[in-house]
Amino acid sequence: MFTTTAVAASAATGPFVTTTVQRRELGPGDVLIDIAYCGICHSDIHTVRGEWGPQQYPLVPGHEFAGTVSAIGPEVTKHAVGDRVGVGCMVNSCGECENCRAGQEQYCLKGNVLTYGSVDRDGTTTQGGYSQQVVVDQDFVLHVPDGLGLAEAAPLLCAGITTYSPLARWGAGPGKRVAVIGMGGLGHLGVKIAAAMGAEVTVLSRSLSKKDDGLKFGAADYRATSDEQTFEELAGRFDLIINTVSGHVDLGAYLGLLRLDGVFVTLGAAVGHDIEFPTGAIAANRRVYTYSLIGGIAETQQMLDFCAEHGVAPEIETVAADQVGEAYDRVVSSDVRYRFVIDTATIGA
Amino acid sequence: MFTTTAVAASAATGPFVTTTVQRRELGPGDVLIDIAYCGICHSDIHTVRGEWGPQQYPLVPGHEFAGTVSAIGPEVTKHAVGDRVGVGCMVNSCGECENCRAGQEQYCLKGNVLTYGSVDRDGTTTQGGYSQQVVVDQDFVLHVPDGLGLAEAAPLLCAGITTYSPLARWGAGPGKRVAVIGMGGLGHLGVKIAAAMGAEVTVLSRSLSKKDDGLKFGAADYRATSDEQTFEELAGRFDLIINTVSGHVDLGAYLGLLRLDGVFVTLGAAVGHDIEFPTGAIAANRRVYTYSLIGGIAETQQMLDFCAEHGVAPEIETVAADQVGEAYDRVVSSDVRYRFVIDTATIGA
Repeated sequence: MFTTTAVAASAATGPFVTTTVQRRELGPGDVLIDIAYCGICHSDIHTVRGEWGPQQYPLVPGHEFAGTVSAIGPEVTKHAVGDRVGVGCMVNSCGECENCRAGQEQYCLKGNVLTYGSVDRDGTTTQGGYSQQVVVDQDFVLHVPDGLGLAEAAPLLCAGITTYSPLARWGAGPGKRVAVIGMGGLGHLGVKIAAAMGAEVTVLSRSLSKKDDGLKFGAADYRATSDEQTFEELAGRFDLIINTVSGHVDLGAYLGLLRLDGVFVTLGAAVGHDIEFPTGAIAANRRVYTYSLIGGIAETQQMLDFCAEHGVAPEIETVAADQVGEAYDRVVSSDVRYRFVIDTATIGA
Repeated sequence: MFTTTAVAASAATGPFVTTTVQRRELGPGDVLIDIAYCGICHSDIHTVRGEWGPQQYPLVPGHEFAGTVSAIGPEVTKHAVGDRVGVGCMVNSCGECENCRAGQEQYCLKGNVLTYGSVDRDGTTTQGGYSQQVVVDQDFVLHVPDGLGLAEAAPLLCAGITTYSPLARWGAGPGKRVAVIGMGGLGHLGVKIAAAMGAEVTVLSRSLSKKDDGLKFGAADYRATSDEQTFEELAGRFDLIINTVSGHVDLGAYLGLLRLDGVFVTLGAAVGHDIEFPTGAIAANRRVYTYSLIGGIAETQQMLDFCAEHGVAPEIETVAADQVGEAYDRVVSSDVRYRFVIDTATIGA
């Protein structure tokens, strides 16, 4: 065991503190990563604040981070010292169940190991990327391609793959009309990725306050969902709608925007409330409702390569370690354009 | 106009009566069909009894029938006098909207003309197949292949296509595990068709009372849904579940039976109540919920050809015109194995 400097939530309602956390010694297949940047995901806030269930504190959040390999175990073949790498929401899975074998480790039937707040193979609780070093199994470490900065790569490892995966799975591309509900951390990446795939993208946002940004990110259209005419004018229009909003949305109204065989995908963690919509809303046009959680490891690598190739990167605001609490409040009030990234060099500095 | 003998519901709660209905004169693209057999669909009962909204009476139901062409209009190219043909749930659609152009006339955006109880192009109300003759646009008339009896072909035109379409669309075939909820008119055909496609079929029925039949129809397994162990033992097992039950089912419990990327399809007419399931039930295994209404005309022909080629036919009980009311009561009490077919020669006999 060794220690690394980290930013931890001291309690569900407590302040963030600079502390040290223990990391395991490098195993044969492990990679030691010097973390450079870690994104702040809205789900970090839900988790830290206990909104998705009780946690053990101090808790170090962070499941989208990038840095440089500083040591490798003797059996590591996929990464070398000096490589630019990243880690997303998972750091292990059983590798044997049919979902893992299908490359969908996020649906591991035996339960995968999440990057923080999860029971690791050795019985310890995982601690995340708001820290300076971490030890991760090589199979869950991604290569950051040339041309993608480490600060920009970080949010791709959660927000990027969460939007890329359903867009790829459901065929976003030339000739397809895609709508993205919400223009936050996930949504703005969904717009950029869908546009880079060649789809015609429409943003559906509460207001038009971010319209200029949306069009700059590649959207062809930007509509306010507070305007009822939006739902009349866009009825039966889209092949695919991805919903990046974590709160309640009127599914029946949004389903009505899908054309024949159109697909509605809700993204993100399942948080308990029921899914409900009128029968007619799903029956018309042979519509499809489904859900998508991040993506598999191989697909995450594809996503990073795709983003590097197409020049897709998140819009980020870099914050120092002592600004994390403030950043959380700003995320909750939608006052971020569009993703906070912690510069881990500032931890304990 | 000319008249034909028919069996009509005299009122929502009234008896069936033998009567005559008017048919339009043969237009240039029309086919005159001497109807031999017409199936009784559960939806006929809902419609006749006003459970899906008010109707005009007398009403002649029947949207799955087969017979012989006895005359054709001058522009008819698809059918000839003497051909064995059938008609399903639709007798016209706009032909111009994107859904019609995609061959999915059942989702016609301008509203298709249903085989009975629907406003036809000439403003009259369509009357269905519980009758001896009908005039139908050639584009909505199907060929009944050799080797398929007219009595057996009739139920395929609604119950057959309703189950065939989602099975084909979602890839039922070798290596796929398919569950069929319900073993009635639709369900027993779903079992036969899925098995003929090469899928491993499981029937999920309230009790095991029809188990022997299910296995005979091609199911590999047959489970009682009244037994809670069924849901534990089959958790995460199926690639595709088709729900042929028109009443309420616990969607959350059934969704739990789907493996990675598994698809749950509810069949039949949308009848107003809401779809509801827990988020976790759809989020796990990246599951999909969708709906399916009959099928397009081209696909209906494919289905008939498939059934003829694979020896798939419904189990039928032929009834006379004066037994329709009694047959309705028996359908409602699930006392039919598995589809009633009216011998139209008995109308007015």
